[in-house]
Amino acid sequence: MKFSPLVDELIQSLRCLPGIGPKSAQRMAFQLLERDRVAGTKLANTLAQAMLDVGHCQSCRTFTEDALCPICVSHKRGHANVLCVVETPADVLAIEAGGHFNGRYFVLLGHLSPLDGVGPEELGLNLLEKQLADGGISELILATNPTVEGDATAHFIADIARHYQVSVSRIAHGVPVGGELEYVDSTTLALSFNGRLPL
Amino acid sequence: MKFSPLVDELIQSLRCLPGIGPKSAQRMAFQLLERDRVAGTKLANTLAQAMLDVGHCQSCRTFTEDALCPICVSHKRGHANVLCVVETPADVLAIEAGGHFNGRYFVLLGHLSPLDGVGPEELGLNLLEKQLADGGISELILATNPTVEGDATAHFIADIARHYQVSVSRIAHGVPVGGELEYVDSTTLALSFNGRLPL
Repeated sequence: MKFSPLVDELIQSLRCLPGIGPKSAQRMAFQLLERDRVAGTKLANTLAQAMLDVGHCQSCRTFTEDALCPICVSHKRGHANVLCVVETPADVLAIEAGGHFNGRYFVLLGHLSPLDGVGPEELGLNLLEKQLADGGISELILATNPTVEGDATAHFIADIARHYQVSVSRIAHGVPVGGELEYVDSTTLALSFNGRLPL
Repeated sequence: MKFSPLVDELIQSLRCLPGIGPKSAQRMAFQLLERDRVAGTKLANTLAQAMLDVGHCQSCRTFTEDALCPICVSHKRGHANVLCVVETPADVLAIEAGGHFNGRYFVLLGHLSPLDGVGPEELGLNLLEKQLADGGISELILATNPTVEGDATAHFIADIARHYQVSVSRIAHGVPVGGELEYVDSTTLALSFNGRLPL
């Protein structure tokens, strides 16, 4: 026992946060105890409520405490019939930050990984197929990560979508804006050549 | 609004933790929501309880949910009449990790800093003086940080202790073990020369 039981337990509990080791957890615990009990209590309450109430959007599977997420219920999405498939809710945020996409999303919450027991069902692909079957979706943009698993997932979804009247595309991979060719890896360079556009 | 209100609030609340920016907070929130709701709920409960129950040890001022901390109530401290004065509870842990000190502690929870409104009372020096006046303390080891404020605090406490039958010492400052002279700053080197011991 290093400190009193409750302080020890707080430090241990903080270690469930990603990237937080024993030293950081200790620093966090002391900071909250010493300087900011109000914020600490608020965090405790919000955390308890979120762990209990936050579920998945019935339409796009992102995190929300309501039946549908703000994007799915919004009437301001001009291209509501365009569906962008991403791996995580953070990807939704990254795309929304750009502000160039005005359709809806479908969040897989992962990628196909049979060895980890993640198959089509875990990714909610039956829900996606149902949405495709119901009609109302004219285009599917596959924005999974450019990794082996992300690519495999994209191809798997493209195969499903082929049965329906939907145009399917994959986001472009190539040299990022501001990047220097010299430092870009050869696979990315090859992709950027394959995906070249007429000018 | 980026996500649904509750998820947004969770991300905002997590930013009260030291060193956690918007991206890390978002990662933490998603990790807990996606993978570890049990740990998240446990953290929420422990945090709420700690913010409410953890106070200060009536003897040494470290954090504890009881009246006295485990070190102050322990009967196994061989040198219970030796008091080591440190700035923070984390310092207690650092010294305890060494296992070479077997006395008790007094935690200032800061250092003298008149501009920030931290005077002798905020550091509990009246409590320390009462303990000195009560007798039972034969030696005072000042282990405040080797900073301007820490040194000033140490000298201030030494002045108080001079009125009582107590031997007062300051921990040695010099070249750390495993350090290389070449890379040690000149102030530390000067201190290590001043504090040289006969061999």
